[in-house]
This record gives sequence, structure tokens and C-alpha cells, in this order.
Amino acid sequence: MSLLAVGTVAFDQIETPFGRRDRALGGSATYLTLASRFMTDAVNLVAVVGSDFPEEYVEVLRSRNVNLDGLERRADQKTFAWGGRYHFDLNNRDTLFTDLNVLSEFHPTLPGHYTDAKIVCLGNLDPSVQAHVMDQTTSADLVLCDTMNFWIENTPDALDELLGRVDCLVINDSEARELAGEPNLILAARKIRDRGPRILIIKKGEHGALMFVENTVFSVPAYPLEDIQDPTGAGDAFMGGFAGYLSGCSSITLDALKNALVYGSVVASFTVEKFGPEGLYDLTRAQIMERIGAFRDLTTIPLDVV
Amino acid sequence: MSLLAVGTVAFDQIETPFGRRDRALGGSATYLTLASRFMTDAVNLVAVVGSDFPEEYVEVLRSRNVNLDGLERRADQKTFAWGGRYHFDLNNRDTLFTDLNVLSEFHPTLPGHYTDAKIVCLGNLDPSVQAHVMDQTTSADLVLCDTMNFWIENTPDALDELLGRVDCLVINDSEARELAGEPNLILAARKIRDRGPRILIIKKGEHGALMFVENTVFSVPAYPLEDIQDPTGAGDAFMGGFAGYLSGCSSITLDALKNALVYGSVVASFTVEKFGPEGLYDLTRAQIMERIGAFRDLTTIPLDVV
Repeated sequence: MSLLAVGTVAFDQIETPFGRRDRALGGSATYLTLASRFMTDAVNLVAVVGSDFPEEYVEVLRSRNVNLDGLERRADQKTFAWGGRYHFDLNNRDTLFTDLNVLSEFHPTLPGHYTDAKIVCLGNLDPSVQAHVMDQTTSADLVLCDTMNFWIENTPDALDELLGRVDCLVINDSEARELAGEPNLILAARKIRDRGPRILIIKKGEHGALMFVENTVFSVPAYPLEDIQDPTGAGDAFMGGFAGYLSGCSSITLDALKNALVYGSVVASFTVEKFGPEGLYDLTRAQIMERIGAFRDLTTIPLDVV
Repeated sequence: MSLLAVGTVAFDQIETPFGRRDRALGGSATYLTLASRFMTDAVNLVAVVGSDFPEEYVEVLRSRNVNLDGLERRADQKTFAWGGRYHFDLNNRDTLFTDLNVLSEFHPTLPGHYTDAKIVCLGNLDPSVQAHVMDQTTSADLVLCDTMNFWIENTPDALDELLGRVDCLVINDSEARELAGEPNLILAARKIRDRGPRILIIKKGEHGALMFVENTVFSVPAYPLEDIQDPTGAGDAFMGGFAGYLSGCSSITLDALKNALVYGSVVASFTVEKFGPEGLYDLTRAQIMERIGAFRDLTTIPLDVV
């Protein structure tokens, strides 16, 4: 199935205890597309960059089968840029700067051959922009969206309207608690699903993720890693991997969703092992499948031995 | 297999957003024994109380097949007492008071019929007291111990010596990071196991637990609950459930350890649904097994559907 991902393509300044990158390739659409490309030939990116965006970065995406017909280039403006510094434990970070630049006026029009995408990933953006993209799609089997505290606090009505329309919300645990106004994550999930999304995925960083779907909960851990270089983009890679797996399925069953969650966790694990999206550059489906095998050992409960 | 648990028997003052208890039955040995009693007839408690400890609480334990020959009663002293207040999210708490009382001089001598226990649970105590109990056991197949930041910071040498002797350390994630001086939990686990315990269990509260054993990691989530009344004792109930399951196994294999971890997580989930240890009072093995079934649905990865 074809997949569409809208989000940011950015310059990231990243500082972790293990290194630093300036003007690295970043942005949610970058991670979403690089992570979702393994199970489908049609990964369609929607984003905007400025005139300062180098051809070298365009080539990173193009050479990995990401369709860039939806990448808008503004001749007279600068690319969105973000800078962050991670603490020693990598679980917390300070945002150093956020320069919206081209992102301040982003009203994407989908190329004609994008509109029949079956899997639609709405990366973290103004909910009205996410809705605008969704409006242009005609044949989606599954619409996933991300959001963040800024939109929860500043555009609650637009977000609420969007939540009533999407199939699957993918957010982290603190966002889920804030969105629901409820500290208990399981209760928060119920409240959020009552507002629309029939599927809710709560990302918990090093603690993995929970998926609420139908009447069940499914839990996946994070793949245990001794060497994490940079958590940037892990959440987007998770969502991209999840969506990408589903784009390779003939239908979106409960079993497909569970496998997709594992797949997302595994793709995210490769992402954090290197800086920025570098861990996704040369990743192969065979490597992903091998780690999924190890993942089964990590979680499979043996038969009761008593 | 027979099981021995040493720890505290206490008066707990508990305040959560959902209620309050004063002079409730508490203490690590209380939770350890009540949680471990389902798979073996011989649960032997070692602890000390004062003259103020009511017969009613003794009966709570005795009527649930906890052997109390190792419960020392000091005629002229008061029972250990602890008070804590949980924050709104239940993930953090403030200690209101800790009155050591009888605990300040606790050098237990095991009753003769305790010394051949196969499973030995050393609840959180001064490491020298834990070692003193371990010295009196003769036939342990598995020695588990708990500890806390106070001992990590104040008695590092005694703790280090103990770690070199026990089979299994059961601690929470912040303690693991502090003990290893390492923020990455997987790396911290390696460093801790290098100091002795061949099995390391890291408890992560609402995020479940990780077990490091042989060359593998095994992950269990916390059972998803919408209604949590009181997290007090959940960690001890987890350890008690884990040890209790193993006491019902003919040998301690990797599969047994994995099942024991699930069992511990399930028993802990019943504990937090009520105040203090009340959730363990009328719990049955059938209820535990039923929730383990639900637990499998929560974690079992279906066959790859692509």
C-alpha cells in the first residue's frame, strides 16, 4: 500500500553526551519516510524547505526511494531549524532554539498522485495543517497523527476536531497525560479514545510503548541497547516503522497492528544507535527482521512450568 | 520448596489521592510473605515487632499460612513505623517519617527449621543484617536480595560484599542507575552483574520490569490498571510473587525465571488495587492464573503477517 508522510524537513543541531552535529538532516518527515520505506515502494513525502537546503540532503532521501514530488522549496526563505541538548541520562533534553522559517506558512497542496495514499502519516504540525492534508486524501485505509504539548495547550479546538477524524494517535506518555488531564495512563488512554482515535499508541521512550486497540492493550518494550548515541527522531522513526509495516500488509488486522508496533520499536532502536537519521541510512529489512527475532526472545512468556 | 523471607513488619501511615490509612499493617516481610504463599506450604517469616503490635495483624499473617516462628517480639519496644504521602500521579511519594524503633537492633537468629530454606528472600535491610541471615542458611538454591539508596550511599562496602554472595538482586531503576553510576540501564545491569548477582531484576513501577539472566534480557510490562489505590509494597509483592513462583518449581530454569517474573508482576498488580497489603488478603491462585492469561494477550507477538 502507498504511504504518505507530512511533517518537517529540518536542520537539526544536536548535542548529546556522545557528540554533536550542526545543521544535520532532521525533521519528522525525514524520520517518518526513512523509517517507513522497507515494506513499500511508494513513500511520498510532504514538507517544505528553504533555498538553503542542500542537494546532498535531498539526495539522502531520493536515493532511498522517498518520493519528493511533495517537497516544496521556497526560493526566498530559510529551512526550519531546531537545536537541542540532551542531559547525561538522554531521557531529558533542553530545546536550544526553534526557528520556524518556512514552516510559519506551510499550506501544502498534495501532488495528484499522492491523494490516493492508503496509509497517511500526519507528523507533528499545527493540527489545521494536518487536517488540510487529510482533506486532500481520498482513499486512506488508516490515518495516523502525532501531536505535542504546544498544540494541546494552544490549539485545543483544532486538535480536538482532528482527533475526531483520525484512526490512530501516536503520542508520548507525558502528552497523553496532558491531553487527557489524567495521570493514570490506562485511564488517560480511555479518555483520549473516547474523543475519536480507535487506535492509540503511547510511546514511553526507554520503556517501550503501549497500543490500545479494540478492547485490548498491547505492550512492547524498547529494544535493550547499551550504546545509545542520540534519541532524536526515535519517536518519528517508531511511527514511521509502524506505518511502514502496515503499508506492507494486505489488510490492517489486530495481528498486523501488533507486529507493526514491534517493527516500529525495532526501527527506532536502530535510529538511536547513531546520530540524527544516520542509523536509518543503510538499514536493511534483513537487519530489521533479525532484531525482531531477538525481540521475540525478549518478550515471549514460556509455557507455565509448574 | 520452602521459602524464607526476612524484612520488616511495620505500622504504615499511607496517604494517596484515594484515601488514607493509619497504623496499617505494612513492611517488606509482610508483603514478601503474603505474595509468596500461593505455590508452597512453607513460607517462613523473619522479622521483629514491638509490644504494641496487635494480635489482629499477627493473625492476618498466620491465617494465610505464614510461619511466624521467626517473628521476634520485643516486650519493651515499639514496632517500626513508616509514613508516606503519594503525589497525584502515584509515581512519586514523600516520606513523612521513619521511626526505626525495634529495627535499630535487629540481629535475627533463625529458628532451626528455617535454616534449610531453598528460596531465601532478603528484604531491604542493612546489608550486614541480610548477610547475617544468609550466613545461617544451609541449603539455599536461590538467594534474592533487595536494597535501597540509603544502603548504596551509606554502607557501600557491606553491600558490595553481599552482592558478591547473592544469586539475584531485585532493585528499582533509579537504584540500579545509582548503584552502577551509569544512566544507561542496560549498561548499568552489566556493571551490577559484574559485581556478583547472576540474575538482576530491575523494577520500573508502571513500566514493568527487566530481568537480566545468562546472556538474555527478559521484559515484562506492568499489568494495565485503570484503578490504582496505593502503590505501597508493590515492589516487595513483586519480589515475593517472583520468589513464590520459583518455590513451586522443581528446578530453577530460564523458563521458570521468566514465568516467575510474570507471576511477580501479576501479584504486584493485585496489591496496588487496594490499600496496603489488603489486595493480597483474599487473593487466590485461580485469580492469579486468570490474570496471567490476560498478561499473555498483552505481550504475545503474533506470527509475522507480511
